Amino acid sequence: MDFDVVFFEAVSIIVSILAFGAAFWLYKWVVSQPSSNKRIAEIGKLIRNGANTFLAKEFRTLSRFCAVAAILILIFLPSPIWNGNPGENILMVVSYLFGTVISGIAGKIGISIATIANVKSAEASAKGIKPSFMAGFRGGAVMGMAVVGASLLGVTLVFFITNNATVLLGFSFGASSMALFAKAGGGIFTKTADISADLVGKVELGIPEDDPRNPAVIADNVGDNVGDVAGMGADLFDSNVASMVAALVMATAIDRANGGSVNAGMVFCYAAIGLLASIIGVLSARMRENGSPTKALNTNTYVTMVIFGVFTALATFAFQFQWRIWLASVIGLLVGVIVGIATDYFTDDTKKPVQNVAIASESGPAFTILSGFSYGLISSLPSMIGIGISALAAYRICDPLGEGYAMFGISMTAVGMLSVVGMIISNDAYGPIVDNARGLVEMGNLGEKALETTDSLDSAGNTVKAVTKGFSIGAAGLTVIALLGAFISEANDAAAVIGKELITGFDILNPTVFFGLLFGAAIPPVFSAMLIFGVDRNAQRMVSEIHRQFREIAGLKEGKKGVVPEYDKCIEIATTGALKELVPAGLITIIATLLVGFIGGVQAVGGFITGNIVSGLIFALFMSNAGGLWDNAKKYVEAGHNGGKNSETHKATIVGDTVGDPFKDTAGPSINTQITVVSLVASLTVNIFLTFNLFG
Amino acid sequence: MDFDVVFFEAVSIIVSILAFGAAFWLYKWVVSQPSSNKRIAEIGKLIRNGANTFLAKEFRTLSRFCAVAAILILIFLPSPIWNGNPGENILMVVSYLFGTVISGIAGKIGISIATIANVKSAEASAKGIKPSFMAGFRGGAVMGMAVVGASLLGVTLVFFITNNATVLLGFSFGASSMALFAKAGGGIFTKTADISADLVGKVELGIPEDDPRNPAVIADNVGDNVGDVAGMGADLFDSNVASMVAALVMATAIDRANGGSVNAGMVFCYAAIGLLASIIGVLSARMRENGSPTKALNTNTYVTMVIFGVFTALATFAFQFQWRIWLASVIGLLVGVIVGIATDYFTDDTKKPVQNVAIASESGPAFTILSGFSYGLISSLPSMIGIGISALAAYRICDPLGEGYAMFGISMTAVGMLSVVGMIISNDAYGPIVDNARGLVEMGNLGEKALETTDSLDSAGNTVKAVTKGFSIGAAGLTVIALLGAFISEANDAAAVIGKELITGFDILNPTVFFGLLFGAAIPPVFSAMLIFGVDRNAQRMVSEIHRQFREIAGLKEGKKGVVPEYDKCIEIATTGALKELVPAGLITIIATLLVGFIGGVQAVGGFITGNIVSGLIFALFMSNAGGLWDNAKKYVEAGHNGGKNSETHKATIVGDTVGDPFKDTAGPSINTQITVVSLVASLTVNIFLTFNLFG
Repeated sequence: MDFDVVFFEAVSIIVSILAFGAAFWLYKWVVSQPSSNKRIAEIGKLIRNGANTFLAKEFRTLSRFCAVAAILILIFLPSPIWNGNPGENILMVVSYLFGTVISGIAGKIGISIATIANVKSAEASAKGIKPSFMAGFRGGAVMGMAVVGASLLGVTLVFFITNNATVLLGFSFGASSMALFAKAGGGIFTKTADISADLVGKVELGIPEDDPRNPAVIADNVGDNVGDVAGMGADLFDSNVASMVAALVMATAIDRANGGSVNAGMVFCYAAIGLLASIIGVLSARMRENGSPTKALNTNTYVTMVIFGVFTALATFAFQFQWRIWLASVIGLLVGVIVGIATDYFTDDTKKPVQNVAIASESGPAFTILSGFSYGLISSLPSMIGIGISALAAYRICDPLGEGYAMFGISMTAVGMLSVVGMIISNDAYGPIVDNARGLVEMGNLGEKALETTDSLDSAGNTVKAVTKGFSIGAAGLTVIALLGAFISEANDAAAVIGKELITGFDILNPTVFFGLLFGAAIPPVFSAMLIFGVDRNAQRMVSEIHRQFREIAGLKEGKKGVVPEYDKCIEIATTGALKELVPAGLITIIATLLVGFIGGVQAVGGFITGNIVSGLIFALFMSNAGGLWDNAKKYVEAGHNGGKNSETHKATIVGDTVGDPFKDTAGPSINTQITVVSLVASLTVNIFLTFNLFG
Repeated sequence: MDFDVVFFEAVSIIVSILAFGAAFWLYKWVVSQPSSNKRIAEIGKLIRNGANTFLAKEFRTLSRFCAVAAILILIFLPSPIWNGNPGENILMVVSYLFGTVISGIAGKIGISIATIANVKSAEASAKGIKPSFMAGFRGGAVMGMAVVGASLLGVTLVFFITNNATVLLGFSFGASSMALFAKAGGGIFTKTADISADLVGKVELGIPEDDPRNPAVIADNVGDNVGDVAGMGADLFDSNVASMVAALVMATAIDRANGGSVNAGMVFCYAAIGLLASIIGVLSARMRENGSPTKALNTNTYVTMVIFGVFTALATFAFQFQWRIWLASVIGLLVGVIVGIATDYFTDDTKKPVQNVAIASESGPAFTILSGFSYGLISSLPSMIGIGISALAAYRICDPLGEGYAMFGISMTAVGMLSVVGMIISNDAYGPIVDNARGLVEMGNLGEKALETTDSLDSAGNTVKAVTKGFSIGAAGLTVIALLGAFISEANDAAAVIGKELITGFDILNPTVFFGLLFGAAIPPVFSAMLIFGVDRNAQRMVSEIHRQFREIAGLKEGKKGVVPEYDKCIEIATTGALKELVPAGLITIIATLLVGFIGGVQAVGGFITGNIVSGLIFALFMSNAGGLWDNAKKYVEAGHNGGKNSETHKATIVGDTVGDPFKDTAGPSINTQITVVSLVASLTVNIFLTFNLFG
């Protein structure tokens, strides 16, 4: 059978709508779950309001940024408005804004359901682990379905309407700029609140986590939602869009050369199957009475993968796609699993690294840091090799198909790795929901048994997160390698127009490329440092506020009945601070890219992107894994090992956890997006600095 | 005037001999200084014996490694003995062994004088700061003169005898493998002892630093010598040799093409002038009565630079060298200063970073770590840009001279940056000598005034170290960029012989190159982690030993007269542990390089070297600077800021300092050598994996 790309676009739209249907059904299901506890409803409302306040302020800040970006795009992209076709510039702006808005809506949906599901999961925990798990998981699944459905629908619509890969890059940049700020802003918010609450609550006053007397406790729960639900959703929305866009840029270039649209069709077909597999995985997810939540989450993921592998094979057979490309995308899936398992090894408390860090902590916090830091560094190796090998394999497998197929193969590896992204987001959003539920159980006094249930759900969330994080970093790595191909493709389109020599590659021995490499490699560390400083400064502000409340509000510390802290003050500080701190970090990335372009031209930018990818991957892997390791080492000690709770060892692991917090939830995962933004900015502006640059 | 290279070789040999003469004169001067205190003589002897014991054991371990390496070289290099000319293989082995032996001798000389100068400086401190400073500085200068004299003499002799650039690479590899183990081994030793002594002495028991009751105190002082004197000397010996060798490889390639030997002559001429400038700088170094030791040290360095700049200009004029290359080497010098100043900013306690870390430490050790970590990351940016710009500038300036000159220009930038290496080593070795002197003053009870004097000399050593470290990392970066050129030159020589296509570059878009990039970039983090683990494990062993002694030796804790701890047990542990821990880290680097070569061939290795350089520079800069920053933040608090000594803030900064210790003195500076080793191994084995590889 030989179908036009329009057929697969239609399929994609239908599957997207199916995903929205599934999301709606899940949403209804979650809302219909019983909830009656007034105290929990009240706190749940505080959390919901706090999250919505943050989101509203964040969107307001972002809209200003987007307005500036939109004006610049209108004037300069795809080519200066006075040179080219103003219609194209308008199309680009619309596409860009569409990308930001649709990503924002997905985030908003995620927050809405997460702040309902947390209450449902909390109340269900009194009845048993199964209903509590289902409420948490299905709440997360709403987000998963909404994000993946929206990203597939958005990409399909833009491509269907414009049939223009450059405009798609604009859409992707919209999603990326949203993700950069949502992830970094949410990340700063959540860790500000988390660290401050722990520092004053647990360390200074010795009151338990989630104690309602703590003025930062609501902010902490809000943070889980804005950082781990909305931020993470925007991040994966962005990765998913970027991988599809990179694949489509390559596919259309090949299709243009060979005639037909089979490769573009293949991209849509595979993406639709990935989403379909996720829908099936999510809807069929069950948990046995008193079963293991970790097992339930992982089983769903593996089921989704198998469905993807089998269905794409059938589709490849039916539609006569290239088997070699199918193989590349399946390799992506397998490497994702390998990277996930490697990540798991370094963060699982039944394995040596976590246990050794706990042992080292007996000698004091310096050794907690040194050993966790070292394991984190080592943990990057298997993933780096895995990403390198899968790119190499995809290239070699697809290269014989002809010009352009090699890079297309790499981009399809990323699409393969991200095929299960619907499942990944569901699992990821499950984490903060049950974390919230735990807080609500504590604050609502639902008793020890309910607390135990939510604790075990929470811990499953942490374990599963490690595997899914491996997937998302791996996929981001492959996507940006493919985006490098898109960058060249864009550069050559532009070069052809103005009659410049075509770019065939980036030679490391060219000192302009090398300069770009060194500069680009230095960006992720600086970006990370700025975010960590943001958390640091913001936490110091919040700690003073908490101190003030305990000092000035009579009866608060003693837990006098009816005395309530001013939760909203802390939310306000976290919100304002996060938005203030995220802008410079985001801007420096974009400005550095443009600077390198205007100084060194295309070759310097090629080096810059590459340096950025290489060091970005190392720091993303290192920070995420070290942070997860320290978190679990603390929990391991709290479970009674190496001295147990309140021992000196425990205090040392708390230092490790505090250091790890912004590593794993602010800086580490934001680097992903930072890399994508650099690649997209470069691709979009390449025709400008192809003409105007100092030394290129 | 037009001279043959032999003329400049003769000049180099004469200047080397002058350097040895200066070293001998300085040695005699130091030895002639008065010393009469029996207690100090006794402890000084313990330190000297400990250092010699370590050195002897280290040399024994290394000789086994070298024997294996020598056999492999004999069989395989420059080409398998059954294919090529066995005479060449023998030459290669001899050259390799010569490199290791001459580097070892320089280290041995350094240790010998340092363990005399420490005693002299200690006793002189009772008389005033000037004689104490001079004893310390001139002791360090012996090492400086010996190392640079030996490296220039070695390179000149090998080149004079063989006139073969490949054999020179063998010599350089000898120096590098020595440096890798000396720096890493010494680094593990010194930090094992330092951390253990502090942990039990200062933190647990609250006894002062350098208290003679502490069983690890002698090991700590031995560590300063084996890590910071012998290790650092071997490191800079290696850098200096590598920069000259890289320049000579390029120069001879150009000379071969153009006839004559003017460029090779220029390398020797500039290197000889650099050494001559250092001799003048060292011999003219004076300090005013009650002057500032920091100023004295820095003035000498700047004087040396000016002499180098002027003399090379005169030589360029007289011998009709290319002015463009002169400019490149002067740019190297200037960038070195800029990198040094940037480094200084992040580690100087009169600047914001150190003070902000002290403020952050008021909130606890987690914030010490987070803020210092972030500043460390940011600190890499100016140096990365500086190195990138100087490479770019050198390339552009020298490219118009013709084929091969661009890379030669980069290598001469490194030669320029390292021209003041004699001065740098003198200043660097001064540090541990006066640090030792401080210990001797404390243990010998020379009184408060003497302690104050040595404290101020010690602190000057730390400040100056930051600047010189910037120089050595910058120079290593430029050297390995040049070595990348040498690698290609070697690869093409080999390719020409077997009739393979010549390599013109390494295209980032080639997935084999990209795979190498990702793999190579992951090596420095893993290498660092292994060294830190080495320190960590070894310190735990030593802490148990110290605990045992305090438990079992009656009267030790109470300081009963005549009760002496078993110092040698601690030295034994540090020695054995360091040698055990260093081997895997060193081997993994070499094996990974060969593995990548045999899997992916020349292109993969090109990527591997580049990834290694890029991430290696970031980690070297980050770790060295963060470590220096934490050290100085602790000292800043100890000087009475932010709560002062024994406050909670102080405890937090001690955690930072402990984390920073292996960063700045073990892992950070060892990465330099690790990068060089990778480049050299690659260059030496390129003709083997050009023929035998899986996918290249």
